Amino acid sequence: MEYSNGFPRKRDVSLQELSKRLAEFAEVRGWDQYHNPRNFLLALVGEVGEHSEILQWKGEVAKGLPNWSSDDKEHLEEELSDVLLYLVRLADVCGLVLGQAALTKIVKNAQKYPVTSTNHTSNSTYN
Amino acid sequence: MEYSNGFPRKRDVSLQELSKRLAEFAEVRGWDQYHNPRNFLLALVGEVGEHSEILQWKGEVAKGLPNWSSDDKEHLEEELSDVLLYLVRLADVCGLVLGQAALTKIVKNAQKYPVTSTNHTSNSTYN
Amino acid sequence: MEYSNGFPRKRDVSLQELSKRLAEFAEVRGWDQYHNPRNFLLALVGEVGEHSEILQWKGEVAKGLPNWSSDDKEHLEEELSDVLLYLVRLADVCGLVLGQAALTKIVKNAQKYPVTSTNHTSNSTYN
Amino acid sequence: MEYSNGFPRKRDVSLQELSKRLAEFAEVRGWDQYHNPRNFLLALVGEVGEHSEILQWKGEVAKGLPNWSSDDKEHLEEELSDVLLYLVRLADVCGLVLGQAALTKIVKNAQKYPVTSTNHTSNSTYN
Repeated sequence: MEYSNGFPRKRDVSLQELSKRLAEFAEVRGWDQYHNPRNFLLALVGEVGEHSEILQWKGEVAKGLPNWSSDDKEHLEEELSDVLLYLVRLADVCGLVLGQAALTKIVKNAQKYPVTSTNHTSNSTYN
Repeated sequence: MEYSNGFPRKRDVSLQELSKRLAEFAEVRGWDQYHNPRNFLLALVGEVGEHSEILQWKGEVAKGLPNWSSDDKEHLEEELSDVLLYLVRLADVCGLVLGQAALTKIVKNAQKYPVTSTNHTSNSTYN
Repeated sequence: MEYSNGFPRKRDVSLQELSKRLAEFAEVRGWDQYHNPRNFLLALVGEVGEHSEILQWKGEVAKGLPNWSSDDKEHLEEELSDVLLYLVRLADVCGLVLGQAALTKIVKNAQKYPVTSTNHTSNSTYN
Repeated sequence: MEYSNGFPRKRDVSLQELSKRLAEFAEVRGWDQYHNPRNFLLALVGEVGEHSEILQWKGEVAKGLPNWSSDDKEHLEEELSDVLLYLVRLADVCGLVLGQAALTKIVKNAQKYPVTSTNHTSNSTYN
């Protein structure tokens, strides 16, 4: 089994686990005082911005990032995980349950965009 | 047990589960052709924007959203879950493993910001 | 001469003119009470998001938007001008002078990226 | 008269002037090849993110940034001018006329939100 920083590589992770770990992280460091919705929203915008800067001059980027170096992939992965961490905290300080809401939205989208034999050329969004 | 759209309320959800559901969702609808990194990144920016619009004129927003109506909370929860869904898909089409990377980042942050008796007044970010 | 909403088409506009008009607009409507830096920043993020939604499923978009309808172009132009209006107001409520700072930044970038006979293949950003 | 980098301080600047300077800047450096709409949009998102990072842990920020150091104000001003520069270029490569569109939008908003004796407690947005 491959290990990375003490975790087996590709271990599945749940949203509640992330939420719990981040809440503990903030609590033991006394950071809760800064953790309100708009602070986290701006932090999230900041991380989305960092992610955008990586992709900004690349023109179209192919699936799977072929020809990217391991370092560049890892950098992008780290920026995306920063977005996730702030998103989880933002939901938490708002008292919202992210995982369940995401499943509910997928069900709602499935009803909105039923599978048909012809929809292979239809609209591409699931929102 | 409470149910919401067929799911028990507050069921824990893993990132791999979301990833798998969304991949199937796109595949059966023939939407994979539109699903490349920069399309998803712009979709993510769009959803972050919708979330920001909800909070834009509110001044400081208190934790837990006291005094918000159920409808307003649900609206915010839905926007946040849209951000999550695009984030999961963005990581997927880049071939990145979001959950594991998030755990790794938490470990890295814990090393960067050790818990001390005095850090209750220190910097508030974990990035 | 072409006119559009009472203005000659393509009239040049200065940043101080926009700033002054928007300040008056807010004042006579009593909206100044809502106009603080973070409210405007989130409003700006919201408008950037609306702009992104227009471009999100289009794959690479060619210069000059060939094959776009007049309506679609006008829609995009309106979203971009919304971004500009919030940006001007954001600078204003922060007490910052946007136009001068932009010129100064161009001079700074020119020093950072001198024109050489070989830089036609160099980095593409001026930041 | 005060001068800053060769420009008189607080000189008014027009959008066409910025547009022209930036186009020349890109042309003499051979950067036009990278300058398409989605590259600039992501660059804009990146700059909005940098701006957000400055404000993310500050809680509510008062008008005029009282108690901010000159350096911090200058940093924020530079980030805002970066947003403006990318916005101007984005409009340009889309073939859109930003200044005129902004004036038109202000007129449209004035019609949408007429001034009345009672609107001092009304909605706060001009979009």
